[in-house]
Amino acid sequence: MKTYTKYLWFNTQSERAAVNITGECEDILEESGIREGMMLVSAMHITAGVWVNDNEPGILQDAMDKLEELAPYGPDYRHHRTGEDNGHAHLKNMLIHHQVILPITDGRLDLGPWQTVFYMEFDGMRRKRVVVKVMGE
Amino acid sequence: MKTYTKYLWFNTQSERAAVNITGECEDILEESGIREGMMLVSAMHITAGVWVNDNEPGILQDAMDKLEELAPYGPDYRHHRTGEDNGHAHLKNMLIHHQVILPITDGRLDLGPWQTVFYMEFDGMRRKRVVVKVMGE
Amino acid sequence: MKTYTKYLWFNTQSERAAVNITGECEDILEESGIREGMMLVSAMHITAGVWVNDNEPGILQDAMDKLEELAPYGPDYRHHRTGEDNGHAHLKNMLIHHQVILPITDGRLDLGPWQTVFYMEFDGMRRKRVVVKVMGE
Repeated sequence: MKTYTKYLWFNTQSERAAVNITGECEDILEESGIREGMMLVSAMHITAGVWVNDNEPGILQDAMDKLEELAPYGPDYRHHRTGEDNGHAHLKNMLIHHQVILPITDGRLDLGPWQTVFYMEFDGMRRKRVVVKVMGE
Repeated sequence: MKTYTKYLWFNTQSERAAVNITGECEDILEESGIREGMMLVSAMHITAGVWVNDNEPGILQDAMDKLEELAPYGPDYRHHRTGEDNGHAHLKNMLIHHQVILPITDGRLDLGPWQTVFYMEFDGMRRKRVVVKVMGE
Repeated sequence: MKTYTKYLWFNTQSERAAVNITGECEDILEESGIREGMMLVSAMHITAGVWVNDNEPGILQDAMDKLEELAPYGPDYRHHRTGEDNGHAHLKNMLIHHQVILPITDGRLDLGPWQTVFYMEFDGMRRKRVVVKVMGE
């Protein structure tokens, strides 16, 4: 059994962003030399998520809009008593989930034809990290 | 360490469906010969999900109704500019998540007494897949 | 490859509760002797979840409030025809997800600076379980 771990850093130019990280995940898989196993892709922050969906700008904006509708930016969250104003981003993290597992088969990410891996940033413009850990053989 | 991979195919008779796949997961575990480890059950499509909950028809319909309330079928999603009409199904995938990990202990799926594994289809009536990957020993 | 499995039991004093289980997860990791791999932390019940977020009471209450807003306690769920009154808790489980994977690197949980692991109870005051399974070497 082998493991291989890398960290992806982000510093998005806007507060919210959907960043396609499929290529980085493929590169890490190749570096790992692992041909059968699983890859964990997990945000290390509590105001971001990871989503596997379609690489189509409309649906990414639809997802951001839906999360804003369900957990809007606003001044009234209890969390803001700490001086923060990003309560909405914690709740968006809750709804979209902060991690995925990508299956690895025959040395490739075993994804469906439209599955693309996105880092979903809800409180950006600062340095944040995703851990990618591959395990298998 | 061993891995074992199978694909489950679906072609549901309705647009939306909750399909109990616990038996298939148990069969795959037995075929794998793995007695300790983890089983990834992951939709390979971006308009479906996997949910572990109660094998009770009422709660499955409640879940479908809640997802319809939170991410309704409708004509106004940006994604529809591509000609698609399934934006709602992508958003339901986001809310329910597309995968679960089932723990394997002593050669069995280590589930609680009511935990049942469902494939959740939001845009059916065509062939779609779930990947099941077992890893352990 | 090694695996190590433990069960955490809960019997919360209120219907809803967010219980910090990060210390228990760290203890289990140490007992396991595993230094590289993954730890699955998964609710064995269908009316509870596991969430990784900030150890700040305000945001935990915000999360509970948001889940109550999106999936309120109430008498009208189809599930209640079975005699149950906890349909809301099944739907909260759906929205928050019932499990997380914690990466293990160099013998430690590889979490970001604010990431804390919470058991999220939506239908408590009775004995319930979480399975923790570590896999690696």
